[in-house]
Amino acid sequence: MSGVELRRRRAAELLVQPAIDALLLSGLHNVRYLTGFTGSNAMLLLYRDGEAELFTDPRYTVQAKQQTDCRVRIAKGGLTGAVLAEIRRKRVRKVGFESDRLTVADLEALKKELPSRTSLEPAPGLIEKLRMVKDSGEIDLIRRSVAINSKALDAALARVKTGMTEADFATEIDYRSRRLGAQRPSFDTIVAAGARSALPHAHPGDTRIEKSMLLIDMGAFYGDYASDMTRMVYFGRADARYKRAYRAVLEAQLAAIDAVKPGATAAAVDRAARRTLKRYGLEREFIHSTGHGLGLEIHEPPRLGRKDKTKLEAGMAITIEPGAYVEGWGGIRIEDTVLVTPSGCEILTPTSKDLREL
Amino acid sequence: MSGVELRRRRAAELLVQPAIDALLLSGLHNVRYLTGFTGSNAMLLLYRDGEAELFTDPRYTVQAKQQTDCRVRIAKGGLTGAVLAEIRRKRVRKVGFESDRLTVADLEALKKELPSRTSLEPAPGLIEKLRMVKDSGEIDLIRRSVAINSKALDAALARVKTGMTEADFATEIDYRSRRLGAQRPSFDTIVAAGARSALPHAHPGDTRIEKSMLLIDMGAFYGDYASDMTRMVYFGRADARYKRAYRAVLEAQLAAIDAVKPGATAAAVDRAARRTLKRYGLEREFIHSTGHGLGLEIHEPPRLGRKDKTKLEAGMAITIEPGAYVEGWGGIRIEDTVLVTPSGCEILTPTSKDLREL
Repeated sequence: MSGVELRRRRAAELLVQPAIDALLLSGLHNVRYLTGFTGSNAMLLLYRDGEAELFTDPRYTVQAKQQTDCRVRIAKGGLTGAVLAEIRRKRVRKVGFESDRLTVADLEALKKELPSRTSLEPAPGLIEKLRMVKDSGEIDLIRRSVAINSKALDAALARVKTGMTEADFATEIDYRSRRLGAQRPSFDTIVAAGARSALPHAHPGDTRIEKSMLLIDMGAFYGDYASDMTRMVYFGRADARYKRAYRAVLEAQLAAIDAVKPGATAAAVDRAARRTLKRYGLEREFIHSTGHGLGLEIHEPPRLGRKDKTKLEAGMAITIEPGAYVEGWGGIRIEDTVLVTPSGCEILTPTSKDLREL
Repeated sequence: MSGVELRRRRAAELLVQPAIDALLLSGLHNVRYLTGFTGSNAMLLLYRDGEAELFTDPRYTVQAKQQTDCRVRIAKGGLTGAVLAEIRRKRVRKVGFESDRLTVADLEALKKELPSRTSLEPAPGLIEKLRMVKDSGEIDLIRRSVAINSKALDAALARVKTGMTEADFATEIDYRSRRLGAQRPSFDTIVAAGARSALPHAHPGDTRIEKSMLLIDMGAFYGDYASDMTRMVYFGRADARYKRAYRAVLEAQLAAIDAVKPGATAAAVDRAARRTLKRYGLEREFIHSTGHGLGLEIHEPPRLGRKDKTKLEAGMAITIEPGAYVEGWGGIRIEDTVLVTPSGCEILTPTSKDLREL
């Protein structure tokens, strides 16, 4: 049984409890997960017996045939019309739909011509829950993505110097990553020099790298799977304030990693990071959550924040990325991609976290 | 009055006809269009008097302040909660929402705590309609994006040779584009060698460029605005079959461009391309539409296909990209970015369309 077929079997089991006869998937990453199909326009009907039908448009006739082993229906008009025809033909009674991935307009289109015996039921988050725990094929792809990402940083850092703009360094990073086999960055690469590092989501711009701190947050897609890493570099000799803040964030990151193990809640991992930063008086400077799941998307559940009670399980791939941000001075973030294992966790990112001066 | 403020005034006028008091925007590109804000999580309430409030989360506190001149509400929980609080506070009665850009789950969240005096009404496509006609600031950005895109192709072609993989050449294109100032590709660059060019959406892979045809479809984002271009290159001496197909597609492209003028329908432009291909017996090999609008998104209305009756207006930016695809042999597509002008149109793409042999 192929990887995606196995996933469909496991997904089909989830339809028994809410007692739906078929699940209509409209989230493209969920469709990709269960079929292998990567086109930009698709829906999937998954039945309780594990059978599935992929709906896409004529642009993808050949690609769909190549990428998936399930039945493919090429819709000439909109996808909802083709889905309705299939529901009618198969006399499906109860159809679950991904309410967090379906637009109101698409739901209305479905409702308009729904056979009277058929009902539509919201069934959000089922596949996302399944996707949280990665299978061995997925873990292998994440490992490769992480390896490319770290090698790309090394290759780019061999070419960095003060005077270079943030944008040019980001370009260099993305180029090296692609040369090493990445499909594309898993998000817009962040390169933030000096005080601009205080913006957690800074866009690389014309600011020149100077004798100060530099924050680099980068990720790659490989085989459709994401990696994510943040590292700091200091150009020149780091001052005491930087060193202390760096130590605080690194300790917080290590404390959070220590807390990662099956059965621990996502919130407990977040707490471990905050507790450490508090000892340094930096807890209010940590303005985001400690991490997130990643896989086919760069941000997936769980969210390692104050409120997420998800219990970690072996096979989850997550980021651990505490930070501290001081407007006008700068920000520090240190981030690894981490795999939850039966006995705790494995830090996948091989790049050193020692304070680095260039 | 700033550009975005003017857009908000024009958008607010659209609320008079469906008689809604405020429009809730959840499409991120629509929010960007009316505010300048580029964060990944946002909603906007636009009132009939042109006032507007932007909702986002704490990650974007500083960025939102920098990018937009309208009031910003930082939501600690989900955005819908903050939107509801504002609707309550302002006692808004009739709120339109973007049914094609809002998920069923978000609509349910809004409905749950909606004040009894407030009603929610589907109001899809209003801002998309406005966005079809570009203002001078937008046209300027598209011109720059097009210029970068064409220069990037020249720079990359100076380095191409047979034996190179599609993926490596695509990497070179994207690198040159970024070096020339692009933010990122406006879609995954397509490089398809030989028979693989018959797949309109081919992903560049390990296939090596050989003495045969090569299809390159590429675009850049500059200042958040997209460009789009397809060119063919033949390595070695093109044979008669290629030359004839190239001539057919080029004639079809020129015929479609000739049909572009204010008042012409999108379908009429598509028809002009098909009519020419039919003369060459290639009409069944043209398996997609003739083009699409572009701007903040790479695919925007209108769609230059058989059924779109949208009348073209001066200020619309569209692609003209007929093609002919023969499985097992290859495909040819030629594409420019074109601006509708009061008297007809201006081809923005400067790259030559002469048959090119390398």
